[in-house]
Amino acid sequence: MNSFGRIFRINILGESHGKKIGVLIDGCPPGISIIEDDFLRDLQRRKPGAKGTTTRIEEDIPQFETGIKKFVTTGAPILISFENKNIISSDYSDFDVKPRPGHSDFVSMMKFKNHSDLSGGGHFSGRLTLGLVAAGVIAKRILKNIAIEAKLIEAGGIKDIDSAVEKALAEKDSIGGLIECRISNIPIGIGEPFFDSLESIISHIIFSIPAIKGIEFGSGFKSAEMYGSEHNDVFIDKSGKTKTNNAGGINGGISNGNEIVFRVAVKPTSSIGKEQTTINFDTGKTETLSVKGRHDACIALRIPVIVEAAAAIALADLTLIQKIND
Amino acid sequence: MNSFGRIFRINILGESHGKKIGVLIDGCPPGISIIEDDFLRDLQRRKPGAKGTTTRIEEDIPQFETGIKKFVTTGAPILISFENKNIISSDYSDFDVKPRPGHSDFVSMMKFKNHSDLSGGGHFSGRLTLGLVAAGVIAKRILKNIAIEAKLIEAGGIKDIDSAVEKALAEKDSIGGLIECRISNIPIGIGEPFFDSLESIISHIIFSIPAIKGIEFGSGFKSAEMYGSEHNDVFIDKSGKTKTNNAGGINGGISNGNEIVFRVAVKPTSSIGKEQTTINFDTGKTETLSVKGRHDACIALRIPVIVEAAAAIALADLTLIQKIND
Amino acid sequence: MNSFGRIFRINILGESHGKKIGVLIDGCPPGISIIEDDFLRDLQRRKPGAKGTTTRIEEDIPQFETGIKKFVTTGAPILISFENKNIISSDYSDFDVKPRPGHSDFVSMMKFKNHSDLSGGGHFSGRLTLGLVAAGVIAKRILKNIAIEAKLIEAGGIKDIDSAVEKALAEKDSIGGLIECRISNIPIGIGEPFFDSLESIISHIIFSIPAIKGIEFGSGFKSAEMYGSEHNDVFIDKSGKTKTNNAGGINGGISNGNEIVFRVAVKPTSSIGKEQTTINFDTGKTETLSVKGRHDACIALRIPVIVEAAAAIALADLTLIQKIND
Amino acid sequence: MNSFGRIFRINILGESHGKKIGVLIDGCPPGISIIEDDFLRDLQRRKPGAKGTTTRIEEDIPQFETGIKKFVTTGAPILISFENKNIISSDYSDFDVKPRPGHSDFVSMMKFKNHSDLSGGGHFSGRLTLGLVAAGVIAKRILKNIAIEAKLIEAGGIKDIDSAVEKALAEKDSIGGLIECRISNIPIGIGEPFFDSLESIISHIIFSIPAIKGIEFGSGFKSAEMYGSEHNDVFIDKSGKTKTNNAGGINGGISNGNEIVFRVAVKPTSSIGKEQTTINFDTGKTETLSVKGRHDACIALRIPVIVEAAAAIALADLTLIQKIND
Repeated sequence: MNSFGRIFRINILGESHGKKIGVLIDGCPPGISIIEDDFLRDLQRRKPGAKGTTTRIEEDIPQFETGIKKFVTTGAPILISFENKNIISSDYSDFDVKPRPGHSDFVSMMKFKNHSDLSGGGHFSGRLTLGLVAAGVIAKRILKNIAIEAKLIEAGGIKDIDSAVEKALAEKDSIGGLIECRISNIPIGIGEPFFDSLESIISHIIFSIPAIKGIEFGSGFKSAEMYGSEHNDVFIDKSGKTKTNNAGGINGGISNGNEIVFRVAVKPTSSIGKEQTTINFDTGKTETLSVKGRHDACIALRIPVIVEAAAAIALADLTLIQKIND
Repeated sequence: MNSFGRIFRINILGESHGKKIGVLIDGCPPGISIIEDDFLRDLQRRKPGAKGTTTRIEEDIPQFETGIKKFVTTGAPILISFENKNIISSDYSDFDVKPRPGHSDFVSMMKFKNHSDLSGGGHFSGRLTLGLVAAGVIAKRILKNIAIEAKLIEAGGIKDIDSAVEKALAEKDSIGGLIECRISNIPIGIGEPFFDSLESIISHIIFSIPAIKGIEFGSGFKSAEMYGSEHNDVFIDKSGKTKTNNAGGINGGISNGNEIVFRVAVKPTSSIGKEQTTINFDTGKTETLSVKGRHDACIALRIPVIVEAAAAIALADLTLIQKIND
Repeated sequence: MNSFGRIFRINILGESHGKKIGVLIDGCPPGISIIEDDFLRDLQRRKPGAKGTTTRIEEDIPQFETGIKKFVTTGAPILISFENKNIISSDYSDFDVKPRPGHSDFVSMMKFKNHSDLSGGGHFSGRLTLGLVAAGVIAKRILKNIAIEAKLIEAGGIKDIDSAVEKALAEKDSIGGLIECRISNIPIGIGEPFFDSLESIISHIIFSIPAIKGIEFGSGFKSAEMYGSEHNDVFIDKSGKTKTNNAGGINGGISNGNEIVFRVAVKPTSSIGKEQTTINFDTGKTETLSVKGRHDACIALRIPVIVEAAAAIALADLTLIQKIND
Repeated sequence: MNSFGRIFRINILGESHGKKIGVLIDGCPPGISIIEDDFLRDLQRRKPGAKGTTTRIEEDIPQFETGIKKFVTTGAPILISFENKNIISSDYSDFDVKPRPGHSDFVSMMKFKNHSDLSGGGHFSGRLTLGLVAAGVIAKRILKNIAIEAKLIEAGGIKDIDSAVEKALAEKDSIGGLIECRISNIPIGIGEPFFDSLESIISHIIFSIPAIKGIEFGSGFKSAEMYGSEHNDVFIDKSGKTKTNNAGGINGGISNGNEIVFRVAVKPTSSIGKEQTTINFDTGKTETLSVKGRHDACIALRIPVIVEAAAAIALADLTLIQKIND
């Protein structure tokens, strides 16, 4: 199933080496101005080009195919798509026989009974996150004054990210990273008790981003080591503002009006030029593999804007749902 | 919204100091034997009584109200409920005016416009997790040979959990903990690309458990510091078995047949006897607060069985969905 | 799956001869006064007792189990249940072997692989509609000024309903009926294009009422015989009011502000005292059957209030969803 | 919301005078051969060209954009689209001021606060049903041996459909019709009790087809006039086959193995050349209107294949869900 959200509902679609990839947004209110510059800025942030990112560069010009008229949403389903142009499929010729360690090649074949399209990672490709970014731009417009900002704060365990990337590149290897996201000006009361808690909904969409292996809110894993008297955030006035923010802006699954803070762990890309071993699934023998293709040494560099988009989509849906209590 | 799952769909209901709490399970296949001993064992593991847990002890005898006949599921919706008997509401008399720091009191009032039932935490109470445990028992029966085991591996940052609890008790304080869950014998191919990835679905339900503030799969946050060449799990035979398990048994959101491993961070309970300050929302003045009532010094002691139940519910749903591809 | 609605979401549960039947309502806004008299009046209208209705009479006192405090909704899930007391299961002893013609006995056994509870119709029983009526009472409170009224307008093809019922009773037979429902004061804009059209959503829930075999909106089947120039409802002022109402208040799936009108066909109850033949599924031989038990000669007498409830539930959900466009 | 189905889930998208219209199918099993001839045959049946249908003729060549590789489904979301080429928007210039009686113009403007795209009926256009037909072709492949056949059996109340159409054309008017759909070889046990009854799910999607105003199953409205002893379908052997089929193949919302039969009423198209009156919403004055554009005198001629597609989509979803009980 490839949909997310109850009211502001998105579907992502497409394959890395197919005609196109895209996003379908259902339940978007009418009358929202689509400002092209907002798109260009966020799409640019996701684009490769910087050191440590893939050399597959696509134009990534959003095609507004349905649901938008004269740069305003009409209330009908919105399809935004992106063409795939810069494709070199030969790079991917034998991953069905020699699946890349750490990659979705193996599970994709098994799950879809050899019918899945593996080329370029097919429907599992990180390229699909373009659709998240596009939907995120619209979600941010729904959220109006809420500000969402994500940043890469560490790569390879160090804060000097440039040198971490250099080192990985030099070794034809890849490297992971840590991203922090902060959301301010959020109203009190967003999120639902239990299954639709803010943490539940945000983590659900965040883990749909390829390569994410962990998420923590507020003090997160550190909380497991704390005393209640330390962790409890003391109110300082009737607005609900607190002195500390160990809860990361969320109590009982619901926003308390303080800044929402979460961090996500991005694993290193599995496709690396460095020689690895894998099994040849025809012969059952161990073979060496050096992934050609064009890949990211540090995919985490491109993920902050995707994290922002995911958070915006989650909050847009919960914000529209909260209208019902008004 | 209080439901979870697409096919094996659960709703939890009730309030801590109301008549009852319970769980409604829709979409459970017919013909599953409900073995009472399975219930008693898992419910017992969640029960307080041990040092460091609340003195509110309920019998917690499951009432099979609908959908089960002669200890076998009929295919109709299953309602399992638990009576609330041991209630002392006076302990909770003024949390609407003086909300507990770190607790849901404040957001609950704000979200539901003062109509919410705060007594004993109301619908936000950890007591509601009884319903998760009950649904988990049935989910485990659907999963047959899949084994799920969760354990508390640290409290207050140390592995000697007893002494961590002792210290918290001595100071009328509370303490957090770290739980690890391991799932073995899982078939390859469970989970969906993107929004219904295994990590998405598991984290969604795990974060519906009160007090959870972080989750990581496989190497998790450590992955952010690793190189691809270290992190990639090398296949060792055609079954898909890998030498290492940094992925925690999941690639591209889908089970790869290796053990699924995840860890969750549990924050310390917010209700503590130790004196804290809070705001009196009538006067706007700072006041001191020493929470009476009966609470857990280390709620993490009771959470492993709830984590197992949550994982079982998530896997039961995805396993039933995967039947569709067969 | 036994749930309906996207935001105001209901589940019905229970069996005719089990402990209880009930309804779980999720997504009900907080602060709605539950006026007991509203319940009693609607439940009374569904109750048997009149000529032509079953002699199984239950007290049907609603138990507000969760989500309501001091007769006001809290925002948490609402469970309302009704005990089953007046049960005579012996009447139903051999319907697994000799299924009643026209009844769900046969499909229920086949679908649920002989695990389903057939006693009294089990989960398929018309008794489950009590839950619809209870949810309908709350839905009507959400709809405020919208007035919904359903009436039995024909039984056995004639307007003198009493004499139709008399005749059926005299022959130990049962008889069908035609119900008309009118909804006034409905705002313009309720319903969605295509899949969530007003007709789609209303018909979906109406056909969940046992014994309904047809529905038509406005001129309905008569429309198939009309010219466009006759059928088109001409606007008479800028409010959107029309001279005729062949559309039954709905254009393009969306309310146009005129009265919503629909009619439903109720088939005669399948359980009749009159001798019929059926197959003995053990022997494969034809046998005669005269259904004992206690049944309705004209179930349509009790259905108008259920139709109102179903319409109210559908409209409450769509009305809450429409808030999102505001 | 523009999605339908729980597992085999479809979304329709696009506008009549936009770039394209299409359908997104999520949850389609992998490995299904897409036979182009099946598409061409069903799309041809929906196409205008015959007497009594619009002169707007589009090529309607399906573009398989995602989820299909070498004419086989991959398991990823499937997007099929159709370009809009033959557009004459000037015909629709002032329907925002002078909405057509019986049309969605008025409600569309009101619901979407004047942001909706009215040109050619926009997202409300019958052209969107192309997506249903395309999804129906795939659904029929999932259903394998199940045969679905719909036919126009009456127009304007008479069986000689040609002469009914001639008469409407001569008067620049339009005319309604009655369609019957028969589904054979259906397994026993498809459909769910109550909310996901076969009648509920089929009627839900059928009423999403523009111009449908009524549906009845088996004896339908005639049932309301019958006695139980007449209406009950007597079993004739242990397979569940019945002598009569008043139930239309459905008991308790579930298929009983006999032919499923339903009829739908199609109203006459609202756009007619014949002069009508309407309100000018700028001036509030009554004005005359003679709709230009290109329209269908008898849209019902083109609807049988859409009814088949809708039924196939509903059954494909319920059939996949029923796998869960196996």
